[in-house]
Amino acid sequence: MAPPSAIEVSAVTDTSGITIPNPLTAPVKSNEILGRRKKANRAQWGTAAPSNTANFRLNSYDHKPKAKRWDHMMNTEALIRKGNSLKEAAKFLGTPGIISLGGGLPSSEYFPFEELTIKVPKVGHFSEAETKESGVIITAGKHDLAENKSNFDIATAFNYGQGSGAAQLLRWVTEHTEMVHDPPYQDWRCTMSIGSTSGTDMALRMFTRPGDVMLSEEYTFSAFVETARPMGVRVCGVPIDSQGLLPDEMDHILSTWDVNARGARKPHLLYTVPTGQNPTGATQSAERRRALYKVCQKHDVYIIEDEPYYFLQMQPYTGPNAPDVPPPSSHSEFLRSLVPSYLSMDTDGRVMRLDSFSKVISPGSRIGWVTASQEVVEKYSKHADVSTQNPSGISQLVLFKLLDEHWGHAGYLDWLIYIRLEYTKRRDTILSACAKYLPREVMSWKPPMAGMFHWMQIDFTKHPDYPAKSIETIEEEIFMRVIDHGALVMRGSWFYADADEEHHTLFFQGHVCGCARGEDR
Amino acid sequence: MAPPSAIEVSAVTDTSGITIPNPLTAPVKSNEILGRRKKANRAQWGTAAPSNTANFRLNSYDHKPKAKRWDHMMNTEALIRKGNSLKEAAKFLGTPGIISLGGGLPSSEYFPFEELTIKVPKVGHFSEAETKESGVIITAGKHDLAENKSNFDIATAFNYGQGSGAAQLLRWVTEHTEMVHDPPYQDWRCTMSIGSTSGTDMALRMFTRPGDVMLSEEYTFSAFVETARPMGVRVCGVPIDSQGLLPDEMDHILSTWDVNARGARKPHLLYTVPTGQNPTGATQSAERRRALYKVCQKHDVYIIEDEPYYFLQMQPYTGPNAPDVPPPSSHSEFLRSLVPSYLSMDTDGRVMRLDSFSKVISPGSRIGWVTASQEVVEKYSKHADVSTQNPSGISQLVLFKLLDEHWGHAGYLDWLIYIRLEYTKRRDTILSACAKYLPREVMSWKPPMAGMFHWMQIDFTKHPDYPAKSIETIEEEIFMRVIDHGALVMRGSWFYADADEEHHTLFFQGHVCGCARGEDR
Repeated sequence: MAPPSAIEVSAVTDTSGITIPNPLTAPVKSNEILGRRKKANRAQWGTAAPSNTANFRLNSYDHKPKAKRWDHMMNTEALIRKGNSLKEAAKFLGTPGIISLGGGLPSSEYFPFEELTIKVPKVGHFSEAETKESGVIITAGKHDLAENKSNFDIATAFNYGQGSGAAQLLRWVTEHTEMVHDPPYQDWRCTMSIGSTSGTDMALRMFTRPGDVMLSEEYTFSAFVETARPMGVRVCGVPIDSQGLLPDEMDHILSTWDVNARGARKPHLLYTVPTGQNPTGATQSAERRRALYKVCQKHDVYIIEDEPYYFLQMQPYTGPNAPDVPPPSSHSEFLRSLVPSYLSMDTDGRVMRLDSFSKVISPGSRIGWVTASQEVVEKYSKHADVSTQNPSGISQLVLFKLLDEHWGHAGYLDWLIYIRLEYTKRRDTILSACAKYLPREVMSWKPPMAGMFHWMQIDFTKHPDYPAKSIETIEEEIFMRVIDHGALVMRGSWFYADADEEHHTLFFQGHVCGCARGEDR
Repeated sequence: MAPPSAIEVSAVTDTSGITIPNPLTAPVKSNEILGRRKKANRAQWGTAAPSNTANFRLNSYDHKPKAKRWDHMMNTEALIRKGNSLKEAAKFLGTPGIISLGGGLPSSEYFPFEELTIKVPKVGHFSEAETKESGVIITAGKHDLAENKSNFDIATAFNYGQGSGAAQLLRWVTEHTEMVHDPPYQDWRCTMSIGSTSGTDMALRMFTRPGDVMLSEEYTFSAFVETARPMGVRVCGVPIDSQGLLPDEMDHILSTWDVNARGARKPHLLYTVPTGQNPTGATQSAERRRALYKVCQKHDVYIIEDEPYYFLQMQPYTGPNAPDVPPPSSHSEFLRSLVPSYLSMDTDGRVMRLDSFSKVISPGSRIGWVTASQEVVEKYSKHADVSTQNPSGISQLVLFKLLDEHWGHAGYLDWLIYIRLEYTKRRDTILSACAKYLPREVMSWKPPMAGMFHWMQIDFTKHPDYPAKSIETIEEEIFMRVIDHGALVMRGSWFYADADEEHHTLFFQGHVCGCARGEDR
């Protein structure tokens, strides 16, 4: 038998009298009780079994408002999408004892894998050296589910799945989402993604039409622009400061939108990376988020909240010689220290939040998840069923063994605190190197509060060849000079929301965690 | 040091004088020499390193014709797609010793995985029982690449990758493709996919416009129709016989296409599953494929060859009491026994072939690959860079360890022969059960030569309630009756290429490998 990963309780509403350890405060040890959980039907864990994330939530949301409908924003593709009829036929497999003679599911007998193990850190001993020394080996067998050894196994994970992902890991991310964001509306749901790049791609294929213009930071994640552009969608950059998007500027753009002059209907979609934004490293404060959310309500704008760096929020920056701020003393203090998400203030259900394991566990897992209203999540997973399908089952099994069966929610929060402190150290190192070596007379920057990026402005007007040489030429020359000196930085111009507009700023982006060496590649 | 997975030779054209074991005939044992390979630059294997599959091919293709261009068929989305500028910046990482201060790559120090192992079959001892007994445990370490223990490791596989996949596994699939199909044109390339459902989705987003009609079997894979429909693409079903698509019928449809009557431009795209087609189980003979290819040339039709079941070709069916045909005696006899692919006769480069590990290794890996001309493959992987990204690196690492480092090409062919014989046995069992229990007076079928599907026709005209009840109602009633008897079959009507047309046939689909039990789910 596997260690019990949680106490299962029959009814969520009926836990008041039961003393169950709280995952936020419970002491952390291997095999500890990780939280309260509803009893799950065994059929929940089977091959390609459908699941409903509403059942994984522990709090009751019945008293909260229902999400608004978004079909008025959806394009033809999304509106006529029906989903995969064969996957829907899977519901008949719920009949006890039924033998499926249909569908293209291979027998697990022909998966050439008997066992998979991973060696991972013990909670509290997270460094590479410690993991090498004292790491724990976790094993997934082929038929653990049938043999009652685990809720997940090779036979299940290595077969086909639902577009929404395996119930096993989907339960875990739903619980995590509830614990961290506790969305203020009734019908929020989660579905897995194969990463947030795909999540953005699929969101645009749901909400945009060729010719649309959508909003984003004036310097924005270039892959987002490159995802949108071929769909005929342009990006209108909203002015930013060191806290990212400026609400008044966004309101102004929307209030004065001239359909004829702009050649596009008024934007109904905002793409934003609120925390440790790529490329600027800017983090929107709670107040800023609330103001931006209000602007979105006023103009009926739907929000794509792309948050890969949410858990790369660092300790406050205290300067070169000041003592460090002590780390969070408990899980709840840690969670309280995080800037609240749009999802956590989303009374309308107008946010599609994209989460990802890429920056905090492993980008190669290609696993993320989407949280949004039931309507949007169902559209998303139906699209997944006929395109991306589910994330790799091998990845899902590996993450399930680590997150659900080994660390649990409490251990994962400990890991995130560890990562927070590591990124804080790296940021402080980069900042002190910059202070020491970079010419302050022409360069300026703000210490990043989150994420991977250090965004440095250059006063190009002080360049001896300006204005004889253009900003672009000066940027190019500096870029190549830095390469000659053995470092690769990113050019600010690569991140223009709209490259066709004129720009009067010059930035370079460095990496807080910069460590990829050419020779190691 | 890892076992040498191949002899590396400096120049492909210069191997004539060297005696190197041929992977098709070499005796099979663990750590054997798996084939000839070009020497690869070590930078080839680094994190997110770009690769060119032309360099992985062993034969010379210089004397062969170049593929035709297909930009005249591509839609606006494909034509304006540029790709991911940040991934292109990765080229500067080739500079020895350079330190990357840009991009969003996390440090592998923060991947909480020290080691991954899989227990897999020894070559020749492939059954589940044997694997349990005598399986081999293969290990991937975190820094095997830096420590010269392997060409692939956790630090690399668990980080970001290129949309085309990791060079390590991409080399393997390219070699496999060359060995099996040896395409007859110069500039063929491979790129990884996250499975053929996504491959089809991405092909349609490259080659179709809303309002288009494309060709396929009149009973076709329903997920394909459900992928196409929301894009505004309808499917025109081409009549079939037990060998699938009928060339004359297809020629007739194309020759007499009336743009006004059909409300769509003449089809320029064929989607076909040539081997063990889903749902009919039909396999096109070599002659049939050549005739269909000619029709496609005549009408300038581009072919999407979706071949998940290619290696589920079975031994000839000899009937209930006749002796079995002896299994292939060598790898080359095995390969010769396979119906040649469209790719192998594709002198124009007009085929996009979709291969997948789903039916022969594991669907949960979400790994497949695309073979097509350089033009098409580059468009595909640029699209992947801003949508699906690469297949899971965890899956890629697992398959690389199994296929490249453990089995090699020869061992994989042995595995495929094993699967062939297993599917042959299962098919024969299903066929003898059908012969014994099903009413031949109203039911008919042909023994499938490949794939997972057994396609059974019902003479609905003999149903007592016909014509009082419609075909659909009769189908529904039989479907529910079969469920009452504890088996799930698929309804033929779920597979109509065009559900709006009238249909005068009634089919059910069974599964050759049928074994998913409701109670195990």
